[in-house]
Amino acid sequence: MSLAKVIAPDIEELIRENPQELASAVAAIHPADLAELLDDLPREDRIVLFEALPVDQGAAVLSGLKGETLRLILHTASPTKLGPMLDRLPPDDVTNLLEHLTQRQREAILARMSARDAAEVERLQRYPPRTAGRLMTIKFATIRPEWTAAETLGHLKRIDPEVETVQSLYAVDDAGRLVGYVALRRLFPAPPDRKIADMMERRLITVRPDTDQEEVARLVSKYDVHAIPVVDENQKLLGIVTVDDVIDILIEEQTQDVLHLGGVSATEEEVEQGYFAAKPWRNVRLRFNWLLLLFVTETLTGTVLRHYEDEIAKVVALSFFIPLLIGTGGNSGSQTVTTIVRGLAVGEIRLRDFGRVLMREGGSGLVLGILLGIVGFGRALLWGSTMPLALTVGVSILVICAWANTVGAMIPMLATMFKIDPTVMSAPLIATLVDATGLIIYFTIAKSFLGL
Amino acid sequence: MSLAKVIAPDIEELIRENPQELASAVAAIHPADLAELLDDLPREDRIVLFEALPVDQGAAVLSGLKGETLRLILHTASPTKLGPMLDRLPPDDVTNLLEHLTQRQREAILARMSARDAAEVERLQRYPPRTAGRLMTIKFATIRPEWTAAETLGHLKRIDPEVETVQSLYAVDDAGRLVGYVALRRLFPAPPDRKIADMMERRLITVRPDTDQEEVARLVSKYDVHAIPVVDENQKLLGIVTVDDVIDILIEEQTQDVLHLGGVSATEEEVEQGYFAAKPWRNVRLRFNWLLLLFVTETLTGTVLRHYEDEIAKVVALSFFIPLLIGTGGNSGSQTVTTIVRGLAVGEIRLRDFGRVLMREGGSGLVLGILLGIVGFGRALLWGSTMPLALTVGVSILVICAWANTVGAMIPMLATMFKIDPTVMSAPLIATLVDATGLIIYFTIAKSFLGL
Repeated sequence: MSLAKVIAPDIEELIRENPQELASAVAAIHPADLAELLDDLPREDRIVLFEALPVDQGAAVLSGLKGETLRLILHTASPTKLGPMLDRLPPDDVTNLLEHLTQRQREAILARMSARDAAEVERLQRYPPRTAGRLMTIKFATIRPEWTAAETLGHLKRIDPEVETVQSLYAVDDAGRLVGYVALRRLFPAPPDRKIADMMERRLITVRPDTDQEEVARLVSKYDVHAIPVVDENQKLLGIVTVDDVIDILIEEQTQDVLHLGGVSATEEEVEQGYFAAKPWRNVRLRFNWLLLLFVTETLTGTVLRHYEDEIAKVVALSFFIPLLIGTGGNSGSQTVTTIVRGLAVGEIRLRDFGRVLMREGGSGLVLGILLGIVGFGRALLWGSTMPLALTVGVSILVICAWANTVGAMIPMLATMFKIDPTVMSAPLIATLVDATGLIIYFTIAKSFLGL
Repeated sequence: MSLAKVIAPDIEELIRENPQELASAVAAIHPADLAELLDDLPREDRIVLFEALPVDQGAAVLSGLKGETLRLILHTASPTKLGPMLDRLPPDDVTNLLEHLTQRQREAILARMSARDAAEVERLQRYPPRTAGRLMTIKFATIRPEWTAAETLGHLKRIDPEVETVQSLYAVDDAGRLVGYVALRRLFPAPPDRKIADMMERRLITVRPDTDQEEVARLVSKYDVHAIPVVDENQKLLGIVTVDDVIDILIEEQTQDVLHLGGVSATEEEVEQGYFAAKPWRNVRLRFNWLLLLFVTETLTGTVLRHYEDEIAKVVALSFFIPLLIGTGGNSGSQTVTTIVRGLAVGEIRLRDFGRVLMREGGSGLVLGILLGIVGFGRALLWGSTMPLALTVGVSILVICAWANTVGAMIPMLATMFKIDPTVMSAPLIATLVDATGLIIYFTIAKSFLGL
């Protein structure tokens, strides 16, 4: 149970009755818990509590806020309160926070910050959103290759206290170009007169400021590094992206993929805004495009059925099984497409595995089809269907399952081959594609088995 | 383009013609790229290349391998090669690697490792899989609260070179109990005679060795820390979980959620194994349970349709729209359930938002229903349907969309309320539930509009 849950009502009471004790009542609460607590308060109380916080605590809470509460605080708290708090935060965090504001609000807050910090924030804002340039911290520790281990350790005593991490120390030459790095833990046991140049790792994993943040996350995860240096075209060190920023990207990216698979085409910006922040009509607009596409595709099923009008008129019972057959095809196809898209995303499946994947999924579909076909055959007999109709249902299920699985495996792989993001091949799309073809399979089998 | 892609054929040629030059040819390749390269080679060549690597490089490659290639190497490479490599890896990594092996294979490899490292690995193996105990590194730097800053920095020169991180230094008392920690970057600028006790952070975020790894990941992300100490019931420090391990968990957990939403009930173990590792029949068995449940639920549609047999016989054209109507309901419900499940997972939606979410999704459904209803009405007229039938279709789409959205929003929230994992409320399940009810809506409207 979270701490925040326990005390939200007490805080509300305090705001009503003893507002001057607010700051001391929450002084010992971890900023991350305090951010959660703010979420639980009524909107007007959130501002009261936030404005009661001392600068340091407020700054820490600010960097833990998200979604609705974050926007509320940024829009309503006074710039005189916010300015000094933002001064305490790393420039990259400030840049991200200011993205939620209008140009005018941004300027009002920047004017309340120290000139140096404001200039740094404005520099970062020039990089496009969702790139390494926006994520990077510009407060990092650099060292020189000609220094000894002892000199380097001595230098660390004089570094800017705002430096975010000293886990890796980046060695730059006279022109500020990155030439190597040393892990701090390797520095301690080194002989004091050992030169950095003789112990540094020269094999560098770097990115450019305009590298997409997803690529940065991929590199951090692949190379298992704690930070990635950002360099310009001359290899000049501009900043570093640390692993904690990467965790946030992974969660955002994950959300986007899940939504795509569910047939919601959210952009990165919308994902970052969160559920309640998006305007309802925007939510409708996003979903409508997809639904309309699926709807139009789905009207194919009507065309197919009109084609078999005479058969349905003769054996009305044929229509009873339509939702069952296409539903089963859709469900089975959804399972496959989810599995394959995910396998492609994490790199477990690659394009050269195409044939193997198709065999595997087609085979699973066949086995699942046989099992469900038997169940469907039995169910049809129980409903009093004739033997030929029950057989039609059973065999159709078998063929549709195998077909749906094959389509569900093939389409995301073809998408990848043509450089289309496979998560766009959502489960609903596969289900819709399988519906019309599934009906053709069903009526073809019915015509032959029932002699129509 | 990855480095690995460029040189895989060259490596194959080298293996055929000049195997003794293999090690020097790949000496400069980053272990993470080498791990990818191994994946691209034919199976028999993977072993040849791996066994040609020097111990250090081999160890680094080993910790970057996953899925099929990892199992292949662990099962086929000789224990005399593997033992010394595993000696170079942190015990938590070794424990995870050995999980892929049988008890006998494990013992053969442990026997080839140094006695001390093997003992550590065996100790970690006693914690249940997927807990903090399994993830934690037991090589960490501890300090004492009574030390001065200068003493502490001096001590770091004598620490075990295998210590994974010195970013945070954990202060323990005489009994080994964790009492606080100091960020290393705060230590450097501190006055040399300042006591650790006077500068350490005493507000500790800790976990127990049996804490689930997902909870550990949640804490790291929430509190924005680089490592979480693992303590026993007496607060004795047992190890630390570092952020790089947490990234791997996030990716695994994400995979599991995506699969659940797609109607594949994979366990954590299966997710970890990867796509190709799972035996095909196992894949079938997992999916069959879900498909059968959905199938049986879907047979409800047959019951509904049999009930309206007379109406269908009178107006066969009614059946043409069945797949379109239930398909649209299913697609729209899938979109909603995905959005809500994700919102719940990342904490953007909480239970107290129930009413708000329902209003929002029901409202979106209504608007989407009106838009698609108009399209459906027009389409039906174009197909030559009578005006009452076209109206039936249009109004049914409207009602079904609003209904599907409401169900899609309500079910995951109810699941959460009853402490059921909402990702289990997969999109296929919602689609199936909406199918039968959608048909009742359709035929009720049809009977009234068409006067049947």
